[in-house]
Amino acid sequence: MVNVGVIGAGLMGSTHARLLTSAVAGAEVVAISDAVQDSAATVAEEVGAGTIHADALELIADPAVHAVVIASPVATHEPFALACIEAGKPVLCEKPLAPSAAAAKRIVEAEGALGRRVVTVGFMRRYDPGYADLKARLDAGVVGAPLLVHCAHRNPGVHHFFDSRMVITDSAVHEVDVTRWLLGEEIVRVTVLTPTPTSKARPGLRDPQLLLFETERGRIVDVEAFVSAGYAYDIRCEVVGEDGTLELLPPATVALRTEHRESLAIPPGFQQRFATAYLNELQAWVASIRLGEEPSGPAAGDGYAAAVVCEAAVAALEAGRPVDVTW
Amino acid sequence: MVNVGVIGAGLMGSTHARLLTSAVAGAEVVAISDAVQDSAATVAEEVGAGTIHADALELIADPAVHAVVIASPVATHEPFALACIEAGKPVLCEKPLAPSAAAAKRIVEAEGALGRRVVTVGFMRRYDPGYADLKARLDAGVVGAPLLVHCAHRNPGVHHFFDSRMVITDSAVHEVDVTRWLLGEEIVRVTVLTPTPTSKARPGLRDPQLLLFETERGRIVDVEAFVSAGYAYDIRCEVVGEDGTLELLPPATVALRTEHRESLAIPPGFQQRFATAYLNELQAWVASIRLGEEPSGPAAGDGYAAAVVCEAAVAALEAGRPVDVTW
Amino acid sequence: MVNVGVIGAGLMGSTHARLLTSAVAGAEVVAISDAVQDSAATVAEEVGAGTIHADALELIADPAVHAVVIASPVATHEPFALACIEAGKPVLCEKPLAPSAAAAKRIVEAEGALGRRVVTVGFMRRYDPGYADLKARLDAGVVGAPLLVHCAHRNPGVHHFFDSRMVITDSAVHEVDVTRWLLGEEIVRVTVLTPTPTSKARPGLRDPQLLLFETERGRIVDVEAFVSAGYAYDIRCEVVGEDGTLELLPPATVALRTEHRESLAIPPGFQQRFATAYLNELQAWVASIRLGEEPSGPAAGDGYAAAVVCEAAVAALEAGRPVDVTW
Amino acid sequence: MVNVGVIGAGLMGSTHARLLTSAVAGAEVVAISDAVQDSAATVAEEVGAGTIHADALELIADPAVHAVVIASPVATHEPFALACIEAGKPVLCEKPLAPSAAAAKRIVEAEGALGRRVVTVGFMRRYDPGYADLKARLDAGVVGAPLLVHCAHRNPGVHHFFDSRMVITDSAVHEVDVTRWLLGEEIVRVTVLTPTPTSKARPGLRDPQLLLFETERGRIVDVEAFVSAGYAYDIRCEVVGEDGTLELLPPATVALRTEHRESLAIPPGFQQRFATAYLNELQAWVASIRLGEEPSGPAAGDGYAAAVVCEAAVAALEAGRPVDVTW
Repeated sequence: MVNVGVIGAGLMGSTHARLLTSAVAGAEVVAISDAVQDSAATVAEEVGAGTIHADALELIADPAVHAVVIASPVATHEPFALACIEAGKPVLCEKPLAPSAAAAKRIVEAEGALGRRVVTVGFMRRYDPGYADLKARLDAGVVGAPLLVHCAHRNPGVHHFFDSRMVITDSAVHEVDVTRWLLGEEIVRVTVLTPTPTSKARPGLRDPQLLLFETERGRIVDVEAFVSAGYAYDIRCEVVGEDGTLELLPPATVALRTEHRESLAIPPGFQQRFATAYLNELQAWVASIRLGEEPSGPAAGDGYAAAVVCEAAVAALEAGRPVDVTW
Repeated sequence: MVNVGVIGAGLMGSTHARLLTSAVAGAEVVAISDAVQDSAATVAEEVGAGTIHADALELIADPAVHAVVIASPVATHEPFALACIEAGKPVLCEKPLAPSAAAAKRIVEAEGALGRRVVTVGFMRRYDPGYADLKARLDAGVVGAPLLVHCAHRNPGVHHFFDSRMVITDSAVHEVDVTRWLLGEEIVRVTVLTPTPTSKARPGLRDPQLLLFETERGRIVDVEAFVSAGYAYDIRCEVVGEDGTLELLPPATVALRTEHRESLAIPPGFQQRFATAYLNELQAWVASIRLGEEPSGPAAGDGYAAAVVCEAAVAALEAGRPVDVTW
Repeated sequence: MVNVGVIGAGLMGSTHARLLTSAVAGAEVVAISDAVQDSAATVAEEVGAGTIHADALELIADPAVHAVVIASPVATHEPFALACIEAGKPVLCEKPLAPSAAAAKRIVEAEGALGRRVVTVGFMRRYDPGYADLKARLDAGVVGAPLLVHCAHRNPGVHHFFDSRMVITDSAVHEVDVTRWLLGEEIVRVTVLTPTPTSKARPGLRDPQLLLFETERGRIVDVEAFVSAGYAYDIRCEVVGEDGTLELLPPATVALRTEHRESLAIPPGFQQRFATAYLNELQAWVASIRLGEEPSGPAAGDGYAAAVVCEAAVAALEAGRPVDVTW
Repeated sequence: MVNVGVIGAGLMGSTHARLLTSAVAGAEVVAISDAVQDSAATVAEEVGAGTIHADALELIADPAVHAVVIASPVATHEPFALACIEAGKPVLCEKPLAPSAAAAKRIVEAEGALGRRVVTVGFMRRYDPGYADLKARLDAGVVGAPLLVHCAHRNPGVHHFFDSRMVITDSAVHEVDVTRWLLGEEIVRVTVLTPTPTSKARPGLRDPQLLLFETERGRIVDVEAFVSAGYAYDIRCEVVGEDGTLELLPPATVALRTEHRESLAIPPGFQQRFATAYLNELQAWVASIRLGEEPSGPAAGDGYAAAVVCEAAVAALEAGRPVDVTW
């Protein structure tokens, strides 16, 4: 049994705690920490966690805690991740790994000094059945060498504090990781185009944005990042290869025929769209810990790479021209 | 140029006249006849037909008329079809060919006495791109020998005079022809099951009905005939073969994503669903006449066979048990 | 933690043991029993179960075992289920619950005498996301009152000992449960039609079969049961209501475009098709035990009802005419 | 009856001649002209055209010819179109209208001097049922104001003489017209990105290309132009609006289930994909002539605009940076 401590009792932290308790084999949530004591208490009671730590660093140090989930605000990720590395405890850190590429790099270097992998970054899409199937077939050569990838990332809406940079760092960051993972190569150049914004976006928000990634081997990836899309949470991905294409299907399971149309549901939010992905991510993470194996999920280096590319993308957004990614 | 006379200026007759004028190569509508003079005059003016015959038999006899479309009430089909045969003029007769199997048989015999095919029956589904594609692949052996066929025939609604027998003779008659055409064999036994009717149906109307056809070689076809389905005009057909299945797709060309769903339009009526089928049917008919060839479409014998099977089906509906088809 | 004993180390038993160990929260497999000792030992080692019981009744009696999964041959279900009831231990029994309606009834009566639910029957489809979504929308009235249900149950192939009756008792039994669960009413009459068998079936096997269920309130359900379908494991279900229809979609997550076609994978076997259903079924079962609640899944009475309907269906198959279900 | 003269007896010319004869109401092909006499003779015989003109200008001048189709090599379009304008005869000119924007402009100016529309350009996609449906719904406001358009234009392969510029001028030119038509505004800036070419392309051919169009009102359109895609002739188009998206569906009419997959055919070539579009284009053109109305299809100005944008795109391809469109 893996005793897990969860840092952060907000939407993501409580979701992880609940899944670990009710749907993941071999795990138990034994401790919770949150800056807001009441939130910590509520989640702790719900999942039967015996201990509440006011200080997350105490949770990490708690000998009863074998492994840590970090789901606190991004500004806190670096110190908590470093503490986990120092304690040698497996940690699953929500994306983004850190608020800057420099901070992410310090995590990578600390883990390097430790000499073994303890950090996993929560790029859960790699565990989505659709993405996993697409990746498996791509790797099997079903469509030949990839040439282009077309992506769309559409949110129904975002918080009022969401700004143009966050369209990249909070949303399109997933496509950065998907690109690197699917193609197995680095992004070297980023362009961000900004069409006339939707009238539904807050004034000043560049939404949608069209990001263009160029990779080491000359592949091109276009990403529509549209966080005020309104109609649903809709994720699209088509890989174009030399012999054909592979594309995610919407995750509907039932067709409804009424009122002159056949309709398939599109999920209202990321929680519904990626419910299975979050579950599979946690199960794989716990399984590796139970087996004493290094985690196989996204590594600190993946979190760092995503941060570097996002910083280039933000620079490209602000400059209005292509920006090379510098490592 | 084939000079066509159209008998019947109602929905079907005017549709045919319009298509012959505006969308079919090599045809001209030169004469119209309808019991209601005003209807005939309206359609004649619209399509530029120079002659209005008060009497349909005069239209048939008119030497300026090379070929005839019969789209008048079914009670009149027999005398008009016989007159066309007597005149040796190609005739496209709307389904059903005649109000009874006996009447249909007289048409078959009259044509037999003439010694060449002049009658085509308006089972237009054979000209629908979907059905035609399905038939071509079935004949090519793509799914092996057919074993079962599942059909659904759903109308948005019907006229107040529509009774339980007409669910068979007016709607499911298409599936009778489709069955014979797809499988290339006769139906020998019919069962009609009547579930609890929809509350949307007029009192007394058995709707939906589930028809079961057994064929000479032991294939079974089930047909949901549901004329008060409300939501659309929806036609389904899946052929199950020894190696796989072939199924009609809904004829949508655009996917709309709004309001948490992806939706595809289903046509509101048969006119929209089978618009291309009606056009192809007329074009093929006119083309055969221009070339002086015998028509290749559904023959008088197909109209007769459909009538025989429908009479057995009506008997099965009334008897509440399987009824053998007798020829 | 729920300590589970698993009876049967074959395909289903080992699958359940593996899922309980690697993917279900709150369960541990502590004991295994199988008539074949080697099979039991292999599975026990794989899942870390400490005890192997040569005699399944000993496993049931083992105080370290809190709950039991029965996945042994159907002939053994009755005595094992009765022993679990006697011991007052929650038991998840694979379908069919018992080899005869009479045997199933004895289980229902024994549980009745106990005074609380301990038996759950493995009709896992109720836990499939597609079926669950369809049921939820049907209950929400999205398509109005149901009138008809069209089902297809296609297996790629079956063992050489599979006979015509087993097409009903082993395959279509799932549709019996689905019908009762979706419509919330009993089946009162069954007809079985037997088209010409596929040439791929073993001589003597009536395959496919077309089953027709009539329910208390006059709904009709048609079920194509086709166990030598060859091409895939394919399950279809469309509910036709007064205002529209609801239909299961194939469970593909990726579209592949190559060689002049777009293609979606259909699972090769029931294990792939219902992997999530099996997992959800076990998780719900374990959760109810952890919470000390009665199980909410299919009950002994559902197993009994399915057996009664299947016996009527077998009688209908053999008689070649409709048979009323007698309780 | 409209007497049509067809210039060019190659693939497009013979296709048009055949359609006019066998599938378009109200037209007759009376004359053919081709630089290769034998080709002209073959087509003339097939469609029953009585006259063969060795010189296309004679065909245009022929008083028996009411209207002209130009389907000869693009180098000849300008003189033939100008002759038609001079003769005041309706002309349907295959795309591109002329080999250069300057040449296209001369045609526009000549027609302007004539004072009425006689030129229609063969951008047949506007007549495709899918595109037409998408346009109608977009104009009806179903998805709100358009923000982005994602297009893909994939050919199975191209002739050996196809060069990187032709990917734009011969293939993506259709998307130029589609963009202008769907959005109702001009393209003002073009970027062309060139990923690593497919190994299936001839050495030196930049294939695929990713074109980016920016419009007057700040919409962005991305176009994958991939002429060695191999697997099919596949056309994709998704318009992203403020309230949802509209997307072309593949034109399949039948689903095949075999060998562990459901598959839908994708057409092998543009002839199959746009068969209905070509037919509708000709029918609408002939109908306007019969009615004595000005043509409603793509005008000379549309041909000129497409040429101007393509020249900017070729410049962008060669320069490797965005190029403004200058009129």
